[in-house]
Amino acid sequence: MFTLRSLAATLALAGLVSVAHAWETLPTEAPAPADNPNTPEKVELGKMLYHDPRLSSTGTVSCASCHNTMLGGEDNRPNSMGVNGQTGGRSAPTVWNSAFNHVQFWDGRAASLEEQAAGPVTNPIEMGMKSWDDVVARLKAIEGYQTAFAAAFGLDGINKGNATKAIAAYERTLITPNSAYDKYVGGDLNALTEQQVRGMEKMAELGCTGCHSGPAFNGPGLFQKFPTHSNQYFEAQHRFSKDLGVAEVTKKAEDRHMFKVPTLRNVALTAPYMHNGSVNTLDEAVKIMAKLQLDKDLSKAEVADIVAFLGSLTGPFPKQEMPRLPGTPGTTAN
Amino acid sequence: MFTLRSLAATLALAGLVSVAHAWETLPTEAPAPADNPNTPEKVELGKMLYHDPRLSSTGTVSCASCHNTMLGGEDNRPNSMGVNGQTGGRSAPTVWNSAFNHVQFWDGRAASLEEQAAGPVTNPIEMGMKSWDDVVARLKAIEGYQTAFAAAFGLDGINKGNATKAIAAYERTLITPNSAYDKYVGGDLNALTEQQVRGMEKMAELGCTGCHSGPAFNGPGLFQKFPTHSNQYFEAQHRFSKDLGVAEVTKKAEDRHMFKVPTLRNVALTAPYMHNGSVNTLDEAVKIMAKLQLDKDLSKAEVADIVAFLGSLTGPFPKQEMPRLPGTPGTTAN
Repeated sequence: MFTLRSLAATLALAGLVSVAHAWETLPTEAPAPADNPNTPEKVELGKMLYHDPRLSSTGTVSCASCHNTMLGGEDNRPNSMGVNGQTGGRSAPTVWNSAFNHVQFWDGRAASLEEQAAGPVTNPIEMGMKSWDDVVARLKAIEGYQTAFAAAFGLDGINKGNATKAIAAYERTLITPNSAYDKYVGGDLNALTEQQVRGMEKMAELGCTGCHSGPAFNGPGLFQKFPTHSNQYFEAQHRFSKDLGVAEVTKKAEDRHMFKVPTLRNVALTAPYMHNGSVNTLDEAVKIMAKLQLDKDLSKAEVADIVAFLGSLTGPFPKQEMPRLPGTPGTTAN
Repeated sequence: MFTLRSLAATLALAGLVSVAHAWETLPTEAPAPADNPNTPEKVELGKMLYHDPRLSSTGTVSCASCHNTMLGGEDNRPNSMGVNGQTGGRSAPTVWNSAFNHVQFWDGRAASLEEQAAGPVTNPIEMGMKSWDDVVARLKAIEGYQTAFAAAFGLDGINKGNATKAIAAYERTLITPNSAYDKYVGGDLNALTEQQVRGMEKMAELGCTGCHSGPAFNGPGLFQKFPTHSNQYFEAQHRFSKDLGVAEVTKKAEDRHMFKVPTLRNVALTAPYMHNGSVNTLDEAVKIMAKLQLDKDLSKAEVADIVAFLGSLTGPFPKQEMPRLPGTPGTTAN
């Protein structure tokens, strides 16, 4: 990844950004693992699978239902709604730039996009399939998928591993480099407003960038404790501590309330906020994060500046052709 | 509409189609009403609204959820699933070529696409919005929709009438002319297989085309009684008579079991079949229709020929760019 320490220093000298922080731009390609290089055929297949509701027990929920590629990569709901109207306790993270996450899910229980893609399909409250064997059987019955898997992986290519590889390959194309922020850091000093530059400086000054750094603003580290500072008022309102985070998976005391540091890219589009989606607006989210993580009370103007800056991390979104999903013989779901 | 009586006659003379029937091709543009001419801005806005789940109470169900433009224009379910996992008693009709329907809904209770588009949004088991006022308020709060409505309808253009006009305008672009059938009727005698031509002839000979005629195979008339011939065996299996059809709306005795004649375009992609989605395969649907509507028992070969022909009514589907839905300020739905 391209680190712009020198430019940041230049900007600091110019008085534009007065706090030394390594502001980084988003690469224009997401890195792919050695065992799953991106190919056009794989990406096209992944796009089909990602948008196909027939990967759910009811035939109504696709990956895109909760991680909507037409929107900010999620569903603007506190908690997503899976098959038969069921909901869980966490808010769907955005799929945009998830290729740059160090781990996946709020509790980081998946190390890769490939591993992540396997989860929701058989989660009873998400896509509700009984098993991946059932998914594979359903895909094998659809002639168009036989062709698409063969093009991407060769004959007899329909299996769980290839399906999740294809979905991950597609997700690696869902990235938003060249935002206003990226242009600014790249040297176009007109790309941000004065208010946005103030917000940018403020984030470094306050220490937000201690966790939200790097090209995707998702940290040098994988996890952080949330809340770090206890606060009765916000706890009563939002019940942040009800969810044990990583400890829900590991059952270890030291993992209690540890959460993946989420990307701030496109955060203006992903209300409501926090792991449980209990905070409705970005203004409130900024205020709460400053208080609970940094023990700082922000003025309204400081919040407004930071929110203005965060808006510079939105898009641009690549144009995508709608996938054509292959036809199904007979009933698929009911 | 372009009627190919002369070509049909020529084909008949050539022995290719031996039954006199006016086979018609699908126009390459759908007719628009005088008060809602298609414009690119309107179509683009309609595409956004059509795919936007924020038009539902839960933020999870869009028009496209049940009338999937990436598939055969519906959801491959017996009955669609609306907000909170609710289901009704009817199977979603395809949106593809719905612009050529003479009336909309299975019971024909909407005279136009504009009128149809208004219905599901406030249906409690479909999209579940309390009122169109609530929909309009939600749209007005989204800056990108202010711009898109202004581009399509001028300032202060966000209202129910314009929203449904835009959706209808988009739907008028969802048509599939130039299928193999259309090419054949247009003179390309290699466009259909011999089996498909046999099926085509058989449909006219049996009388299927008495109801399923015209460019969209949805009749010269608006409604037909289904079932026409009572049959204990199929009734026990499929409960077709439970639904009173048009009479559910009009409460009139003469409207009992009257249903809109559905298009056969893309029927190979829209399993399961019939108004209640109780028939899983196209083979079975063809067999049942012949028995219940024409009192005829088809051989397996006849069914196979007709099904092969119906496959020639699939696509081709226009390439579409995925709409970008404008971002939402704060929570939209929960």
